[in-house]
Amino acid sequence: MGGCMHSTWDHALHSRGEPRPSEAPASISAPSKMPKSVSISKQLASIKALKKGSDLEKAIATIALVFRNASDPDGKLGKATAKKLLQTQFKKFTEREETKPKYQDILSELDEHTENKLDFEDFVILLLSLAIMSDLLRNMWNENTMK
Amino acid sequence: MGGCMHSTWDHALHSRGEPRPSEAPASISAPSKMPKSVSISKQLASIKALKKGSDLEKAIATIALVFRNASDPDGKLGKATAKKLLQTQFKKFTEREETKPKYQDILSELDEHTENKLDFEDFVILLLSLAIMSDLLRNMWNENTMK
Repeated sequence: MGGCMHSTWDHALHSRGEPRPSEAPASISAPSKMPKSVSISKQLASIKALKKGSDLEKAIATIALVFRNASDPDGKLGKATAKKLLQTQFKKFTEREETKPKYQDILSELDEHTENKLDFEDFVILLLSLAIMSDLLRNMWNENTMK
Repeated sequence: MGGCMHSTWDHALHSRGEPRPSEAPASISAPSKMPKSVSISKQLASIKALKKGSDLEKAIATIALVFRNASDPDGKLGKATAKKLLQTQFKKFTEREETKPKYQDILSELDEHTENKLDFEDFVILLLSLAIMSDLLRNMWNENTMK
């Protein structure tokens, strides 16, 4: 499947930056008071709406919390922080990928746009693009590695 | 931030469909022997490489396992299955969103491409686009909802 499937989804992603007064209250940009030292699992457990959430819902919420905990008060993630996150919290997906041209392309592009910070969608797409090129994901999907 | 940041990442995503013999062994398309009734947490625990994985790594792996468990032997997810997954495992992000035009756009686009199945990247972008328009994500990021 090519990019055609992504047009509306991409639109949904990219149009988020436009003003949407009814949907984006100012409070979304307020930094959470949750101390960063509180574990993600405790933060997850504190979200009433996810008490009986599925693994899938909790996984998306986890990524959102990791992003939020590391993001600036404006709700975006600095490039340096993003790279540090990749090194400290996403190493298992990247540790044997660093010599691949595609990995270097992804990281170079991150570097070149030094004027920009990452939105949540940028962050997830970054994780996704690194994950799908990883041996770890390939191995996870290969029955032989399921012990 | 607009779409400019996504060009390499999108390329990384979309070029995955091209033949890459050295990186995509035939076994990637083999269905996992892991029975679908085995819980995601048990499946996660069975992945040696993630034994000491971070919350972020486990979250991405969880999404990958949910996708894999529901996907066809060709490694792709049928549209009907994708919709069922959204209804059964992603309801907390969508349950109050269904009247929003953007939600309907996303689901309509999914419907219109009946000839296509979803790759893992399509699936994650679908989840992401639904999550970022959700009140749940907004509320998660709003300090007032952290109890």
